[in-house]
Amino acid sequence: MSTNQLDCILRPRSIAVIGASRKPDTIGNQIFRNLLYHGFSGTAYPVNPSAKSVQSVAAYPSVLELPERVDLAVIAVPCTHVLEVAEQCGQRGVGGLVVISAGFKEVGNVALERDLLAITKSNGMRLVGPNCMGVLNTAATVSMNATFAPSMPPHGTIGFVSQSGALGLSVLDYAREYGIGIAQFVSVGNKPDVSGNDLLTNWAEDAEIEVVLMYVENFGNPVRFLEIASQLSGRKPIIILKSGHSVSGARAATSHTGALAASDELVDALIEQAGALRARSMEELFDMAIAFTARKRPRSNRTVVLTNSGGPGILAADALEANGMVLPELCEHTIRELKAVLPPEASFRNPMDMIASARPQNYRTALQLLLADPNVDSALALFVPPMGVRQQDVAEAVAAAALGSDKPVYAVLMARNGLPEGRAELHDAHIPAYIFPESAARGLAAAVKHEARRSRVTELAPAIDADRTTARSIIAAGIAAQRSNLTQLESLQLVKAYGIGIVEAVVVHDRAEATRASASFNQPLALKIMAGGISHKSDVGGVQLNVLPEEAGSAFDAMLSTVTRARSDVVIEGVLMQPMAAAGVELIVGAVRDPLFGAAIMLGAGGVLVELMKDVVFRFAPLTTTDARAMLDRLRSRALLDGFRGQPPVDRASIVDTLLRISRLMQDCPEVTELDINPLFARPNGVQAVDCRVRLHSV
Amino acid sequence: MSTNQLDCILRPRSIAVIGASRKPDTIGNQIFRNLLYHGFSGTAYPVNPSAKSVQSVAAYPSVLELPERVDLAVIAVPCTHVLEVAEQCGQRGVGGLVVISAGFKEVGNVALERDLLAITKSNGMRLVGPNCMGVLNTAATVSMNATFAPSMPPHGTIGFVSQSGALGLSVLDYAREYGIGIAQFVSVGNKPDVSGNDLLTNWAEDAEIEVVLMYVENFGNPVRFLEIASQLSGRKPIIILKSGHSVSGARAATSHTGALAASDELVDALIEQAGALRARSMEELFDMAIAFTARKRPRSNRTVVLTNSGGPGILAADALEANGMVLPELCEHTIRELKAVLPPEASFRNPMDMIASARPQNYRTALQLLLADPNVDSALALFVPPMGVRQQDVAEAVAAAALGSDKPVYAVLMARNGLPEGRAELHDAHIPAYIFPESAARGLAAAVKHEARRSRVTELAPAIDADRTTARSIIAAGIAAQRSNLTQLESLQLVKAYGIGIVEAVVVHDRAEATRASASFNQPLALKIMAGGISHKSDVGGVQLNVLPEEAGSAFDAMLSTVTRARSDVVIEGVLMQPMAAAGVELIVGAVRDPLFGAAIMLGAGGVLVELMKDVVFRFAPLTTTDARAMLDRLRSRALLDGFRGQPPVDRASIVDTLLRISRLMQDCPEVTELDINPLFARPNGVQAVDCRVRLHSV
Repeated sequence: MSTNQLDCILRPRSIAVIGASRKPDTIGNQIFRNLLYHGFSGTAYPVNPSAKSVQSVAAYPSVLELPERVDLAVIAVPCTHVLEVAEQCGQRGVGGLVVISAGFKEVGNVALERDLLAITKSNGMRLVGPNCMGVLNTAATVSMNATFAPSMPPHGTIGFVSQSGALGLSVLDYAREYGIGIAQFVSVGNKPDVSGNDLLTNWAEDAEIEVVLMYVENFGNPVRFLEIASQLSGRKPIIILKSGHSVSGARAATSHTGALAASDELVDALIEQAGALRARSMEELFDMAIAFTARKRPRSNRTVVLTNSGGPGILAADALEANGMVLPELCEHTIRELKAVLPPEASFRNPMDMIASARPQNYRTALQLLLADPNVDSALALFVPPMGVRQQDVAEAVAAAALGSDKPVYAVLMARNGLPEGRAELHDAHIPAYIFPESAARGLAAAVKHEARRSRVTELAPAIDADRTTARSIIAAGIAAQRSNLTQLESLQLVKAYGIGIVEAVVVHDRAEATRASASFNQPLALKIMAGGISHKSDVGGVQLNVLPEEAGSAFDAMLSTVTRARSDVVIEGVLMQPMAAAGVELIVGAVRDPLFGAAIMLGAGGVLVELMKDVVFRFAPLTTTDARAMLDRLRSRALLDGFRGQPPVDRASIVDTLLRISRLMQDCPEVTELDINPLFARPNGVQAVDCRVRLHSV
Repeated sequence: MSTNQLDCILRPRSIAVIGASRKPDTIGNQIFRNLLYHGFSGTAYPVNPSAKSVQSVAAYPSVLELPERVDLAVIAVPCTHVLEVAEQCGQRGVGGLVVISAGFKEVGNVALERDLLAITKSNGMRLVGPNCMGVLNTAATVSMNATFAPSMPPHGTIGFVSQSGALGLSVLDYAREYGIGIAQFVSVGNKPDVSGNDLLTNWAEDAEIEVVLMYVENFGNPVRFLEIASQLSGRKPIIILKSGHSVSGARAATSHTGALAASDELVDALIEQAGALRARSMEELFDMAIAFTARKRPRSNRTVVLTNSGGPGILAADALEANGMVLPELCEHTIRELKAVLPPEASFRNPMDMIASARPQNYRTALQLLLADPNVDSALALFVPPMGVRQQDVAEAVAAAALGSDKPVYAVLMARNGLPEGRAELHDAHIPAYIFPESAARGLAAAVKHEARRSRVTELAPAIDADRTTARSIIAAGIAAQRSNLTQLESLQLVKAYGIGIVEAVVVHDRAEATRASASFNQPLALKIMAGGISHKSDVGGVQLNVLPEEAGSAFDAMLSTVTRARSDVVIEGVLMQPMAAAGVELIVGAVRDPLFGAAIMLGAGGVLVELMKDVVFRFAPLTTTDARAMLDRLRSRALLDGFRGQPPVDRASIVDTLLRISRLMQDCPEVTELDINPLFARPNGVQAVDCRVRLHSV
C-alpha cells in the first residue's frame, strides 16, 4: 500500500461526518449509516451540534471537540456553514475534506468555492468536492463507504472517478449486476483541488487499482492529463466516458459544472493520444469494464466464435468485425479434431456452430481445440440455452477449457428469465460474461486495443534542425508591425526555416517586376493575388495557373484589372509568383493553439475531402514520431497515400517529418496561434508546401 | 379476426403434436407440455406410436387415427420420418404443418426439403419450417405456445418472425423483462413455403398486430418484400435485425440456412426504401420495440429532456442528437412558469435539470409545462433515484403528466439494485421505459423516423418519354454481335435516347477524320482513346484535354503512338472526340441488375469521393420520385449540390429526372446488366453525361 497525501481521504483510519443527522433520508444520516453498515475498519464520529447520538453512536457538537485528530472530515452541512466548518477542521488538524454540500461554483458562487479552497490550502488539507457524492474504498483493510449510495459495489480492481455524482451512483448500482468489482470510487464534484488527474497519478502507484474508469464532463487540465494518462495507459487500461459533445449536451455541461466545454475533435485526439479507451455510452463503459476482468490478454485481433446457434453466432461475427476484430479460417488440423468429436451437422468454420444439441462437454472439448489453434488469440463462447442443459454446466465447461490456455475467453450467456444463470461461475474464473453478443464484441475489441497500446514502444521525435534565427526574425517583424497575420511569403519562409520543403515564391508589385522575376523561372508559373480581404482568390480572378514565363507581364496586368473590378474594396499588396508545382496527393497540415488544450497539430486530406468529409486528425504537441505515424493511419482517406488508382505510394516518412517540424515550430514560437499549409503536396519523393498562412498573437 | 389460409397455423382450434414424447427434455415433450401449460384454447392431441399417454393425455399412434381432422400438426420426429408423417397428415386433411425437425436444406439435404414441400403443396397444406422452433399466439382466444421456449412472453401487439430459432427464443426470453408484448411469433426455419413475406402480408390485415419485428439472415424474395413492406410501413412500423453483413457473418449465414447472402449496401437500400427501420444490434431491436409501446406519436424530432441529474441528462442529449433529434430552446413562457415552481439552482434550459432535490410532484408539474411548450413534440423524463424518493412515485407522476398531453413521453429509470422499480407503472401508462439514456434516444429516434414515413405522401414517377426505337436498335445491334459491352458512343446514345443530356461525341479513326470532325466543333476538345482492354485511359496517355480544334489532327497522331507504345497488346478502335464540358459537380449515376434483388439504381459523389469514401446510395427500380429525391438527401456529400464554396446550387430536379430515366431504362431493357454514367456533371441549369458504359447480357 502506497503512502501519499491522498491516503487521508482514500484510506483514512478515522472519519468525522459533519452534519450527521438523526433524520433518515438526509444525506448526513445516510453517509454515517453507510460507514457503519458497510463496516468501516477505522473509527467514525458523527458531528452534530444538537444531537446526543446518531445511529446509536455518541455525537460531538463540533469537530473541535472530537477526542482525536481525524484523517478525514465528510461535510454535509448547508453551504452557508461550510467555510466555518472547514476552518474548524483546519484548526483541529484534519487531513482531508470531502465536501458533499452543493451551492458553490455550479450555481455561480465562485467566491465561496475560492474561499473554501483557500482555507484547505492554508491548512494543508486536501479537498474532494464540493458538490459531490463522496468517496468509497472496498479494500477489506479500509471498507469505507463514505457516500450516500444505497449499496456497496462488489470488491474489485477498478478505480472509478466521476464528475457527476448521479452518474457515479448509477454505475455503482449496476456494478453488482454486471460483475464489475470496484476498488475505489471518488466523486470529484467541482474539483477545485482533487481532480481526475490527481487520481490518475495516485492510482498509477496503487497496486490495488488495475483498471481506471472515468466519467468526464470537462478536462480541467488536458495538457497534464495527456502526460499522466500516456504513461499510465501503458500499464493499466483507462476507460473514459466523456459527455457533452453534442450542441445541447455541451450547453448543459457548461451550466452544470460551470466549466468550459472543449470541442469533441480535440477530446477524441486527447483520449487517443493518451492511449486511453473512449466509451461512447454508459453501456459501452460497462462492456469495456467487464472486458478487463479477464486475467489474460489477447495478443492480436484474431478471434474465434464458438456457438450453439447460428443466428446469434452471426450477430457476434458481425459485431466483432465492425469493431476491428478478425475471424480467420481455422487450421485444417483443428477442423479435423473438431470433426472427430462433434456431429457432422455442425458448421466447422468460424463462427464454429455446434448446433443446438451441444452439451457442456462439447463446449469444453471444442473450446480447448479452438484455443489451441495458432490462427486465433482469443475465443468468444456463446450459449443460447436449449432444453435440458443447465447454463451453469456450460459455464463450468467454458471455465475448465479456458483454464488450460493462455488465451482469453469471453462468454455470452443469452439470458433466460432475467439474470442469466452461470454468470457466477464465469466471474469466479475471470471470464468476462455478457448477455448480448454485440456487448462482448465491444469488450473484446477494447481489450485488444489496450493490449496494442501496452505493447507499443513509443518512438520519440528526433531533434529538429531549424534555422531559428530566421524564424524568430520573421515573427518578430510581424509582431513589431502589430500584424495579426504573416504574409503568404513570410509564412512559407517560416515553415522553410523549420526545414519543410516549399514551392519557392516571389512577390511582384508591377508589370516590370513580374517580367523580370519570371525570367528566373524556366517553367510555367502560378500567379496569385495578395490582398488581405480576399479569402477565395479564384472566385475573383485572383489565381492564374500555367502562365508561360514570357506571358507573366501581361498576366500580371490582366489579374490586377480583373481583381480590382471584382473587389474595389481591398488593397492589393502584390502578386505571388511560383513555379507550377508537380501534381501530388493534396494534404492539409496545420496547427491551432487552444487556450486549454495547447497546440493541436492537424493532418487532413486536402481539397474537397477536408471540407466536405471533415477527414482530419488532431494530435497535441509535442508530437512523438509514434503520434505522427498514428495520424497518417487514422486518416479515412489514407488509401490516397498508399498508391491510389495505380499511382506510386507517397513518401510517408516526409509527411511524418513535416508534422514533427510543425509540432516543434508550435513549441518554439508561442506567438503563432494558427498555421495552415494548404495544400501540402505529397509525392513519392517527398512533400512540398504550396501555400501557407500563419496567424500571430503577441505573447 | 381475419380468416385466411394461415389461420390453420396461427389460430388453430385443434393441434396434433407428432413426436410428443414422455421423456422430459425432449422437444416433442416440451412442445406438448407448453400447449397444455399455457392453456391452449383448443384441443391438443399427442401422437406417439409407443406411448399410451403423454403428460397424462391419451396419445394416438398416428395422425391417421386421430378422432378429428386437426387444423395444425406440429412435427418433431427424426427427419428420416418426416415425409411419411407429412403424407399421413395430407391424407387426414390437416390444414397446416409446423416442422420442427432439422436435417434438411441447412445440412445439404435439398432433395428431402423439396419432397416435403411437394407433399404439402399437393395436399393443400401450408408449411412452417422445417428446422424451426415453432409458432406462438398469445391472444386469449388462442393462447397457443407451440414452441419449445421455456416461457410465454407477455401479451401485446408485436408480430415477430425469426429466421433463427435460437435468436427467437432469446427475444421471447427477454420480452417480459423489457415489457415487450408479443401477439404472434413464428420461427420460419428454412422457409421453403411460409416466409417472412407471407407473414407481412398476413399481419398487414391483422388488427391484433401493430408492430412487426423481423430477424432476417437472407431475403428470399427481396422484390416482393419491397412491395409488401413499402405498403405496410405506411401503417405499422417494421423493425428488422438483419445479420450476416460482415465477411465472416456472411460466410456463416450461407452455411446456416443454405441461402445466398446479399451485399449489405443492397440490404440497407432495401430496408430504407421499404420504409422499415433497421436495428443494428439485439439491443437496438429491443430499444425500438419498446419505443412503439407508446400510444402517442412524435410529430417532429424536437424533444426536451427533463432530468434530476446533470450527467445522465447530458448523456441523453448527446445520444438524442447523435440519433438525429433536436433539443430546441424552451419558450420564455415555459421557462417563466418553470421558475415559479422549481428551485433557482435548477438549470432552465434543455436538458431541464431539476437537480437532485426534485420530488415526484416536481416531475409532474415540470413535465406538464414542458409538454405544453410549442417548441417540442415529445419529452424524455430521466430519473436517477436520490434518497427518500420512491421510483414508483416518480413513475406515477410522469404517467399523470403524460396523460394530459397528446405528445409522447419516454422515460429512463436508472436502475437500482437490478430491475428498476416503477417500470410497471410506466408500462401500464404506455410510456416506454428504459434503463440507459442512450437506449431511450435510439427508441425515440426510431419512433420519429416511422412517423415521418407514415405521414409521407409518395410521389410516383411521371411517365418517361423515350426514343425506345433507337434504344432497342442500339441494344439489338450489340446483342446480335454477341458483344458484352456497348461502345462508349453507343452507351451515350442509349442514355440520350432515354432523354438524358449528354456531351455530344464522335468517333474518329484516322488523322483526316479527326481534322474533319474537329471543324464542326468551335471550341476546345477532349480526345479519349477507345480500346477494349484499357480501363484507366489516362494512365497510358489515352486522354487529351483542351485540344484546340486546329490541333486535333496532330493530337490524334500523338495519342495513337503514345498508347501503342504503352499497350501494344490492345486493339485500338478509334478516338472519341467531345467538346470540353463546362465544369460542374461531378456525380456518378449507375445501375446494376442483381439476380436476386433486381435492378439497383446508384447515385454517388464522383471522382475520388466515390472510390475513397464509398459515398453512394442505392434504390431499386422502379423508383418513385420520392425514392429518387431520398437518394440525393442520403448522399453524405450532398452539400456539394446546394452551393458549396460559394458556387450556385445545382439543379436537383434534373438529377432526380436522370435517376428516374435510368430506372425506366433498366425496366424496359432487361439485356442491360450494368450501366455507369461517370461523370455526370450537375450544374445550375441541368445535368450532362460525359462518359457512359453499358454492359449487356442476352436474355
